[in-house]
Amino acid sequence: MDFTREELMTAVSGQMPERRWGHTLGVMESAVALAHRYGEEPERADLAALLHDVAKYWPIDQQESVIRDNQLNMELLDYDRQLLHAEVGAFVAKERYGIEDSGVLDAIRYHTSGRIGMTKLDKIICLADYIEPGRDFPGVERIRELAKQSLEEALVAALDSTISFLIEKRKRIFPMTVLARNDLIRQISR
Amino acid sequence: MDFTREELMTAVSGQMPERRWGHTLGVMESAVALAHRYGEEPERADLAALLHDVAKYWPIDQQESVIRDNQLNMELLDYDRQLLHAEVGAFVAKERYGIEDSGVLDAIRYHTSGRIGMTKLDKIICLADYIEPGRDFPGVERIRELAKQSLEEALVAALDSTISFLIEKRKRIFPMTVLARNDLIRQISR
Repeated sequence: MDFTREELMTAVSGQMPERRWGHTLGVMESAVALAHRYGEEPERADLAALLHDVAKYWPIDQQESVIRDNQLNMELLDYDRQLLHAEVGAFVAKERYGIEDSGVLDAIRYHTSGRIGMTKLDKIICLADYIEPGRDFPGVERIRELAKQSLEEALVAALDSTISFLIEKRKRIFPMTVLARNDLIRQISR
Repeated sequence: MDFTREELMTAVSGQMPERRWGHTLGVMESAVALAHRYGEEPERADLAALLHDVAKYWPIDQQESVIRDNQLNMELLDYDRQLLHAEVGAFVAKERYGIEDSGVLDAIRYHTSGRIGMTKLDKIICLADYIEPGRDFPGVERIRELAKQSLEEALVAALDSTISFLIEKRKRIFPMTVLARNDLIRQISR
């Protein structure tokens, strides 16, 4: 990696408002705690969490351009704009910051949508993003409690809260999120 | 067609409990009313509604056999068993009762799941199945009211109620239902 952790923190924090940087620090804290609890390398959780929202506050047209110009996942352009920054973030982490651990890049890429066959690191980053200490939405306490018992149970509850939110707001539901949720339920029932 | 309407009614009613036959009569009534309201041929709505649940009370292993033996949509076998009877019903309508109108067969096939690009007849049968007079679930009155204004608005509300129900019951959500819902929202916002 070409950047020290400190350099990365400076670079990432400079690309978002202070409040969002506070969120990122919270996700790093929660992700490292989940890594310890569930047997993932804390350094990888820390790194993925640090970079997960790097592109979140880029202008939307710039995010769209990165996806179009580099022929990333074009399907995302049909759905909620909130999905773009994860794909762009993984790209930026690799191309600009030299991250080569594909598991870390995937955890960034799928932290908003989830996917079928989520790795432990994917689950940790996705879940940490929901439960970091700064989060305060209806049901977050229940998800935090579940996170102490099962990564998968907590993540199903978290994704369900997103699907219900999108229904309430009459927004389109990204099919991969449903597939991710179904797959987690299948994992739990095995 | 090889059967008169009366013969079909006798044949279908003999394959389900009396209560479910009452539901079928309700769907026929609602589907014909929706057809008049939204400019579909009432005869097609009547026929699709009459046959939509023909296989609903067949033993599950028999439904599964029909799907496997005739290489119908095998993906359904991974999801809720409630989805099978629609696929089987369309097959039976064609093979046993000689229905050749592919639009009627599709309306039977997709009446539970929905699909991308639902036809007017698809929408009518799917919606009639939710709002027929015998139905009584939380929110059904709102869907009945919406059905007087817009087929698509009513159907989005209906599919959303199914997705929310599956979330509540921790059951897997059939992705096509989400795609159908997203597509209807897209149609409305055009």
